[in-house]
Amino acid sequence: MATHVETPAPSASRPDEGAPAPAPAGVAPFDVAEMTAALDGRWAQVRRDVRAQLPLEAELIASADDLTRAEYRERVKDVLLELAATGQTGLGFPTSHGGGGDVGASIAAFETLAMGDLSLMVKAGVQFGLFGGAVLQLGTKAHHDAYLRDIVEGRLLGCFAMTETGHGSNVQALGTTATYDPATDEIVVHTPEASATKDYIGNAAAHGTMAAVFAQLVVDGEEHGVHAVLVPIRVDGEPAPGVTLTDDGPKLGLNGVDNGRIAFDQVRVPRGNLLDRFAEITDEGRYTSTIANPNRRFFTMLGTLVQGRVSVGGAGVSAAKAALTIAVRYGDHRRQFDTGDGEEQVLLDYGMHQRRLLPRVARTYALSAAQEVLVERLHEVSTARNGGSGTEVDDHAQRELESRAAGTKALATWLATDVIQECREACGGAGYLAENRFAALKADTDVFTTFEGDNHVLLQLVAKGLLTDYASSFEDLDQFGLVRMVTGLAVETVVEKTGAHALLERVRDLLPGGDDWSSEARIADPEYHLAMYRFREEHLVSGVARRLKRGIDRGEKAGAVFSRVQAHVIAAARAHVERLVLEAFVAKVRAQPAGPVRDALAALCDLHALAGIESDRAWFLEHGRLTVARSKAITREVETLCARLRPVAVDLVDAFAVPREVLRAEALLG
Amino acid sequence: MATHVETPAPSASRPDEGAPAPAPAGVAPFDVAEMTAALDGRWAQVRRDVRAQLPLEAELIASADDLTRAEYRERVKDVLLELAATGQTGLGFPTSHGGGGDVGASIAAFETLAMGDLSLMVKAGVQFGLFGGAVLQLGTKAHHDAYLRDIVEGRLLGCFAMTETGHGSNVQALGTTATYDPATDEIVVHTPEASATKDYIGNAAAHGTMAAVFAQLVVDGEEHGVHAVLVPIRVDGEPAPGVTLTDDGPKLGLNGVDNGRIAFDQVRVPRGNLLDRFAEITDEGRYTSTIANPNRRFFTMLGTLVQGRVSVGGAGVSAAKAALTIAVRYGDHRRQFDTGDGEEQVLLDYGMHQRRLLPRVARTYALSAAQEVLVERLHEVSTARNGGSGTEVDDHAQRELESRAAGTKALATWLATDVIQECREACGGAGYLAENRFAALKADTDVFTTFEGDNHVLLQLVAKGLLTDYASSFEDLDQFGLVRMVTGLAVETVVEKTGAHALLERVRDLLPGGDDWSSEARIADPEYHLAMYRFREEHLVSGVARRLKRGIDRGEKAGAVFSRVQAHVIAAARAHVERLVLEAFVAKVRAQPAGPVRDALAALCDLHALAGIESDRAWFLEHGRLTVARSKAITREVETLCARLRPVAVDLVDAFAVPREVLRAEALLG
Repeated sequence: MATHVETPAPSASRPDEGAPAPAPAGVAPFDVAEMTAALDGRWAQVRRDVRAQLPLEAELIASADDLTRAEYRERVKDVLLELAATGQTGLGFPTSHGGGGDVGASIAAFETLAMGDLSLMVKAGVQFGLFGGAVLQLGTKAHHDAYLRDIVEGRLLGCFAMTETGHGSNVQALGTTATYDPATDEIVVHTPEASATKDYIGNAAAHGTMAAVFAQLVVDGEEHGVHAVLVPIRVDGEPAPGVTLTDDGPKLGLNGVDNGRIAFDQVRVPRGNLLDRFAEITDEGRYTSTIANPNRRFFTMLGTLVQGRVSVGGAGVSAAKAALTIAVRYGDHRRQFDTGDGEEQVLLDYGMHQRRLLPRVARTYALSAAQEVLVERLHEVSTARNGGSGTEVDDHAQRELESRAAGTKALATWLATDVIQECREACGGAGYLAENRFAALKADTDVFTTFEGDNHVLLQLVAKGLLTDYASSFEDLDQFGLVRMVTGLAVETVVEKTGAHALLERVRDLLPGGDDWSSEARIADPEYHLAMYRFREEHLVSGVARRLKRGIDRGEKAGAVFSRVQAHVIAAARAHVERLVLEAFVAKVRAQPAGPVRDALAALCDLHALAGIESDRAWFLEHGRLTVARSKAITREVETLCARLRPVAVDLVDAFAVPREVLRAEALLG
Repeated sequence: MATHVETPAPSASRPDEGAPAPAPAGVAPFDVAEMTAALDGRWAQVRRDVRAQLPLEAELIASADDLTRAEYRERVKDVLLELAATGQTGLGFPTSHGGGGDVGASIAAFETLAMGDLSLMVKAGVQFGLFGGAVLQLGTKAHHDAYLRDIVEGRLLGCFAMTETGHGSNVQALGTTATYDPATDEIVVHTPEASATKDYIGNAAAHGTMAAVFAQLVVDGEEHGVHAVLVPIRVDGEPAPGVTLTDDGPKLGLNGVDNGRIAFDQVRVPRGNLLDRFAEITDEGRYTSTIANPNRRFFTMLGTLVQGRVSVGGAGVSAAKAALTIAVRYGDHRRQFDTGDGEEQVLLDYGMHQRRLLPRVARTYALSAAQEVLVERLHEVSTARNGGSGTEVDDHAQRELESRAAGTKALATWLATDVIQECREACGGAGYLAENRFAALKADTDVFTTFEGDNHVLLQLVAKGLLTDYASSFEDLDQFGLVRMVTGLAVETVVEKTGAHALLERVRDLLPGGDDWSSEARIADPEYHLAMYRFREEHLVSGVARRLKRGIDRGEKAGAVFSRVQAHVIAAARAHVERLVLEAFVAKVRAQPAGPVRDALAALCDLHALAGIESDRAWFLEHGRLTVARSKAITREVETLCARLRPVAVDLVDAFAVPREVLRAEALLG
């Protein structure tokens, strides 16, 4: 993964005869509380409130090791209901229905919740984010009045029934049908074949009593695409008539969440159960929608659910913070091997150990900043949407938001997988004991790269937005739309349509090229870092456009063209998101008042930016944007920055403010 | 990790205007049984015998999801005893004591066992490899006669009590003491402080009745370094007097193994319990040893236990094979997204999916070949050792074996972590369900990178051997020995001492340098690949020597010098092991009779070699051994090889011959 911080290559690239750098001046100490405030940002109070609650989860986290799956599920449900009582889980719902009316706050709360038990966090996401979100975003007043308050207060537990055994990423091809029967004015929900069974559905195996079911809506014999219908699935704890519920059984992690399968045998619900914000069936039994294009309608509906992806990305960053807190603190007091003067050396004083942990600390700060920007955008767009305006500008902002959410989710969840693994290994055998938290962190976060959208598929969605500059709506997520899109256009037209194209001019202004590229003086200049990231993005994105165009002009099949270009498509999308992350971090640093906190953030930002260039330096060398000397200088600078940050390493992770109680790992924290 | 197969960078490095490669000719179909025979090698019959037994484990693997930890531990113990009855676990012990007298066969059996339940495999490793191995290798006839048969047949279950809470990697600094008391002719085993408690010890929490305890031996007030003493730890199921046994509790994985802690309070055992092959306490109560140097004595003792590392590396390769079998077969039938002509496309027909899986298949074949060579060497050395000869030649061979075992273990276990993770993600949500095996594979193998030696520490051991060309014995594993070693030597002397130095001449013969480096004609030539790997190794190893020397000459402290050079030390060691792996794979291909199996292996070998160069191409570009054009050509060749191997992908994993019953994942296998 690109999130992986390479260690061997860098050292390999040191010039053999270059004099080793003298011991560099360490980054100045800073006030940890001040750094925490900088990280907390706009919704600091909510984050503090949730952190204050987290110690209550310590007992749940510890007991999870010994409970049976059934017992663990019940405990998680009980704590979820206690949580609902605090109001923290309803922040995103309208005040008119018992909510807090603050979307940004709800994400901030959810992100912080992710420092605690992740089964609880995911079950909360299923109940309040996915199920509640579907009713809120896809339903209308009648549904809101009937269900929202019960959902917010936990009296009505529900499922988000989208994924099927046969279809995960390609949601438009779902097999479940919802057929309107004018004779009884009902909608008949049905599972036509085994592969259309709803699968991996949270709250399905034990606790859900209702499900928002995504199905192909058929009215008067005509298919209108995927819509959501509310279907009761349990009555008095028993499966509703015609509903078959099965347990997905034990999972790699998140065993406190009752994932299961749902199959429907001609289940009838009133017409009013159709969530009809974007399309309805009239009293006369006719289908009408404010959005004519079926694909566009579908993606407009999905778009309102973007919150889920924003939440998962934020949860990934929080999990990485927990892992780094344990590993860095352990490395600061664990000693191993005599340094030759009779005392064993602390792990974090070894160059390799610094290399393993500090660039990951920097990257976690970077994704934290990117996530903060994402939540701001989500908050703005949601507030505007719920304000009701629907202009083209909003559409464009909505699509940019969806793209940013998809890309940040992919990078943040890959970060979590990578960071937690490296931290576990950096704690050796102790890291393998459940009492030291890594077991749960690893197992529970592992599926983050898959759910709420497979990361590779999400990056393809990002690429599509780049190639169209968000001009066309997200009609068909189907990546072959990428290929068809370029049909009939001239290459330059395609390139000009890309959102990244505009970057090139800005880059050229900054980087005259030639020898200046190798000027040591600018190696720690954020403008230099940004220029490198922007150049790579523009080059990769226009390269994809050219390749697609070439394949089409040759008359090759879309499938063949896409398959060959796919890895490049994903690299281009990744380069785009990396640029957004760096821009967010640079802006975060600049927004800080001058002082030790800002200086530490600036050093972290340099480390993140340069480690990113270093890990992809082959590409920059191949594309004439790094000289060999400069490439080696960047590696030396990365090592210097690791050494400079080492003295404040513990403060940097303490600033994440992960409550000790949820970290467990007493012996490792020191 | 170096084992990580990069995906984004390669695609990023395609020349924008380069014409895409035409659909390449696929690799010819081959006979799967023939490929399996090629993989099985010398000990094929043993591997077949164990595979035939594996289906009996299917029930254990499946039931593990639902058993409590206590029940699971009991089940694993019961199956272990059944296994002992088959004789498969005693193959490495002398026939005189109920064994099979065939070390190579015992490793082959253990490797194959790793396709099944890994708790069972690890418990078998603890009992027969570690505990049994210590009695066999460190004990003498009296110990063999008294215990070996009971160990082989499972009547005496024991522990290998080396690691302590405070000391893992640095074994020489263990705190446990074994003091000889002439008054009673006993040895007093004691835990002087909490950090000296034996920790993570398999068989300690529940089933072990005896332990081989590694402790600082004190005779007549003099410390003689770490020695092993047999100490009964349980009597009739209860802790022996003075012995405190505690449970390590739940772990990330391997919960069928009863890991625990052991503390001793002045526990007395007869003098005869000292495992005295290399050192004894005479009837007169004097300490004598055939090896004068205490460090050398210690590493000679450790060296006899190299089998454990060989076994773990082999287990990592087997686990990777199991994961790839599931993911490749799933990718061959799972469809997602319409290709534009009304049918969804199979995952493995996507370029990105091929990129994610096929280089990992190739690398797994490569490490399989390297492991095969390692087992051959172990078999030869062990057989020679048990033949009793102790010449200098043997010492050199022993050290090369230890180095090869350490390096192969590191790469093979990192391969397992990387491959299993990627395969889980490639199977999406289905990969997250325990019924599909990845949960256990991921959790159980996670500690492989840590136990039997932390991978980073092991690579430092490899580097030490390289820098001394195995000339000095492995006196002090302590990496600062690396630094002290070069004191007083001239740089060139240091460089000439390196084992890698000789490589350079061979490389120069093969590679005249200059433009020839970029000749397309040789891109798929194994000699070219080997030359590149050898050049990198020599360059990095001599670079380390120069850096160490420079630091010492400046009069810097050993700790400071080592810390700065550490990442380079590890990169050099990794380059060395990568070269050994490639040489083993190339030799394996050349040993095959001409035909489809050899052709497929040759394509896999090219893919492995070129993917390795590609992932480190920045280094080769920086060191003038790749032109930009050649670098991009290598990326294209890697993609072409993936496409050529795709038609036989399923056959390639079927040839691993992992029994379906232990893979579970029926729905995914197709």
